[in-house]
Amino acid sequence: MHGDICVFQDFLTPVHRARIDAASDAAGMKVHYFTTDQFEEARACVQHCEVLYTASSRLLRAAPAGLRWCCTSSAGVDEYCGDPEIFANPECLLTNSNAYGVTIAEHVVMVTLMLLRRMPEYAESARLRLWAPPRPVRSIRDSAVTILGAGDIGGHVARRMRGMGAARIVGVSRSGRAREDVYDAVYAIEALESLLPETEILVMALPATPDTAGILSRSRIALLPETACVVNVGRGSAVDQPALAEALNAGRLGGAALDVTVPEPLPPEDPLWQARNLVLTPHVSGNLTLGYTCDRNVEMFCEDLANYAAGRKLAHLVDRSRGY
Amino acid sequence: MHGDICVFQDFLTPVHRARIDAASDAAGMKVHYFTTDQFEEARACVQHCEVLYTASSRLLRAAPAGLRWCCTSSAGVDEYCGDPEIFANPECLLTNSNAYGVTIAEHVVMVTLMLLRRMPEYAESARLRLWAPPRPVRSIRDSAVTILGAGDIGGHVARRMRGMGAARIVGVSRSGRAREDVYDAVYAIEALESLLPETEILVMALPATPDTAGILSRSRIALLPETACVVNVGRGSAVDQPALAEALNAGRLGGAALDVTVPEPLPPEDPLWQARNLVLTPHVSGNLTLGYTCDRNVEMFCEDLANYAAGRKLAHLVDRSRGY
Repeated sequence: MHGDICVFQDFLTPVHRARIDAASDAAGMKVHYFTTDQFEEARACVQHCEVLYTASSRLLRAAPAGLRWCCTSSAGVDEYCGDPEIFANPECLLTNSNAYGVTIAEHVVMVTLMLLRRMPEYAESARLRLWAPPRPVRSIRDSAVTILGAGDIGGHVARRMRGMGAARIVGVSRSGRAREDVYDAVYAIEALESLLPETEILVMALPATPDTAGILSRSRIALLPETACVVNVGRGSAVDQPALAEALNAGRLGGAALDVTVPEPLPPEDPLWQARNLVLTPHVSGNLTLGYTCDRNVEMFCEDLANYAAGRKLAHLVDRSRGY
Repeated sequence: MHGDICVFQDFLTPVHRARIDAASDAAGMKVHYFTTDQFEEARACVQHCEVLYTASSRLLRAAPAGLRWCCTSSAGVDEYCGDPEIFANPECLLTNSNAYGVTIAEHVVMVTLMLLRRMPEYAESARLRLWAPPRPVRSIRDSAVTILGAGDIGGHVARRMRGMGAARIVGVSRSGRAREDVYDAVYAIEALESLLPETEILVMALPATPDTAGILSRSRIALLPETACVVNVGRGSAVDQPALAEALNAGRLGGAALDVTVPEPLPPEDPLWQARNLVLTPHVSGNLTLGYTCDRNVEMFCEDLANYAAGRKLAHLVDRSRGY
């Protein structure tokens, strides 16, 4: 009845494959596995498949009009939504994998504490073998946290900030609603400018859409308190990078941690590399090496494979016009 | 009725002084304030005082036999307990200030995540303006945590590890009992060797006593799994530093973070500075710059000043023979 499944992933263990094999059997479908260095073989195979579980959009571009569902192992889907030509079948379903909340939230807690506790400066002293004098530090406890993007990642961050004793945790989303009830208050994006002056820790976990491009603009950066810390784990396009670097270098901001930038990789000559109190990481906060993240990723695909086979609505469906 | 109080502290704000003034008034005692650069003035004053609230043991050594109570703003009291000559009055009471749990626990969470998420390596790449490839990372979630020292600091660490989803949090103390019910299990120190092979994150928050000197010995380091991370925020004397550096450099340990060392400051030629996967900070995890820590410190002294004036037992009394 159903066609075949093409899996184009590098992280799968034998246990993951067994789970996918079982789900495919239950769905009455045949599954074919390829790693991302087997692009030509995968391209030949995907021509007769109706489902694709993929690590990148490259193989989707090569897929035929017969493809009915593409599941990406990413959370962000901007590379799948920017270009309508990418789907030979305009009705093709797209699902994503919100499996990154745990690892990204741990990254957010780490870099927030590094900024509050002046770790970049202590690390530089240690590199020079200097026993540095104490510097004033701050605390997540009793801090006001604003989380821009109240989805899966935002919820995981909020719960951990709560566990660390944050004073107030506010979520901000397009709709003014949050996926989970873990915030002291949730506001629609229109309230952002009134929230920024009272924000000590700003966490950004937004998808890349036309609405979020440049959302942390020069004028909004200027609304943050001088001691505020900014953490971005969504997409680099959300931040006015030159304005952020200027504010950091001028001491008009406490610090920032960017795991995402424009472009990626950030070229060696980019001024961000030497901005003051900036912790830069190379898009690794959602690193697909954590066992939990990988297991959850496979689990979400298999759950939706059962939904697909039964003709039910997919649980992790992306609105391609909205971009998330 | 009562004599005078000598306060020898640098961190006090006008609000803190007002709180101490009020507590002294209520106790019917007169209070004198000095910063630590006013040692001679403070020494002259302490000669007619019966209470001392001090930042260091130096002034205590100069105090007369009339001194009846010394409150240190530190949590660790090793500099007050090692030498019996330090108290002119052998019956003098000693209290400490367990006000550091919040800031030290935030430090522990930060450095633990830095080790699990390979931040020293990412930071080195960033310093060289290199966009590094993803490295395998690990997570506090689902990790087995052992906290050696189940006192105030241990409790704060345990609660935050719980909030991050640790799989199992075990406390270890001399008595096999913990101050708070925040552990999955609490063991007496005799169980340490059986716990180490199952420990993924070892947090050490012990006082410096003869019993704790060298407790993380070469043979015990060898019992830890190769991926284990060691975090020490107690006293440097608890760790066999050469054995730790060897294990790190040989890859027989996942990483370590030391906020305390022997000696302090660590001299520039010490091999610890360049041990592999070691995060070194200069005894700042309990940094007295955090508003909460300072407020709590003053509050504890004032609570015990009321106890003292009323002839009640002091709440934060140290057993000088035990050393904590």
